[in-house]
Amino acid sequence: MTVIEEVLKSNESYAKGFTLGDLPMPPGRKLAIVACMDARLTVEEMLGLKTGDAHIIRNAGGIVTADALRSLIISHHLLGTQEFIIINHTDCGMLTFKDEELRAKLQRQTGTATVVPSHFHAFSDVAENVRQQMQKIKSHPWIPEHIPVRGFVYDVKTGRLTEVSA
Amino acid sequence: MTVIEEVLKSNESYAKGFTLGDLPMPPGRKLAIVACMDARLTVEEMLGLKTGDAHIIRNAGGIVTADALRSLIISHHLLGTQEFIIINHTDCGMLTFKDEELRAKLQRQTGTATVVPSHFHAFSDVAENVRQQMQKIKSHPWIPEHIPVRGFVYDVKTGRLTEVSA
Repeated sequence: MTVIEEVLKSNESYAKGFTLGDLPMPPGRKLAIVACMDARLTVEEMLGLKTGDAHIIRNAGGIVTADALRSLIISHHLLGTQEFIIINHTDCGMLTFKDEELRAKLQRQTGTATVVPSHFHAFSDVAENVRQQMQKIKSHPWIPEHIPVRGFVYDVKTGRLTEVSA
Repeated sequence: MTVIEEVLKSNESYAKGFTLGDLPMPPGRKLAIVACMDARLTVEEMLGLKTGDAHIIRNAGGIVTADALRSLIISHHLLGTQEFIIINHTDCGMLTFKDEELRAKLQRQTGTATVVPSHFHAFSDVAENVRQQMQKIKSHPWIPEHIPVRGFVYDVKTGRLTEVSA
């Protein structure tokens, strides 16, 4: 059995016990989060969020890419979120390589160059990376200035968030 | 108290009971998921996943953007995932608008035009949208052909996943 088959079995059980069919589309707690895709981050649990509470945007690194900005703009303007959080974390895979090395390796392995993705967004300092992502949100003309944007580093050894000063 | 202050309080409790500090960086079940950011999708719960099991990539719509491709490439080539899932869902906010209408509205409201994001990726047919996203993964030269890519629509009324044929 593939892992996909296993998780589909789990979904059958989940659906049998499902009681949340009446939740509205807009997030109940008006919160949007940008976090890393890392398997060790269970975002809802680490923040005490329930199904229906918050938009959760995730990608490699917890980077405020054009795509994350797209999602945040939709989150606020169409679905009413009013506070934003960015979460990066210790021991991130993005600390382990350099963009150009990875690009060269993939070109060599596959024999094909490509322009998408244009960047991998590897970084060398987690707190500084969080600061740069906060800045990208705060400087976007379609994100209102009154929205709080706070950034954190999650420690995968302790489960604890530490705030990064802006 | 802001919602951010509330979730930070919740994180203090989470960290006090935290016992997962020894999980390795690569996802234990070698699975990567691209899903919508919608607040009604608690991806781990709907699939029976535990902390450490899978990479979870999320954005508005569950779209395979350049950023999602970036994340999937890192997920497979650096961290060893071997199966990919795409999850869109019923009652998605992306079914409720058209890209050009939203862009025009934001330009009017803010008095500023911007080229980032270049697209909002609104769509009108969820199953067809899932098919298009699967195709974007399968046709990327840096995603090996042997990786299974399966797509699903999650029903927010029932908690159930339905597979979309390729």
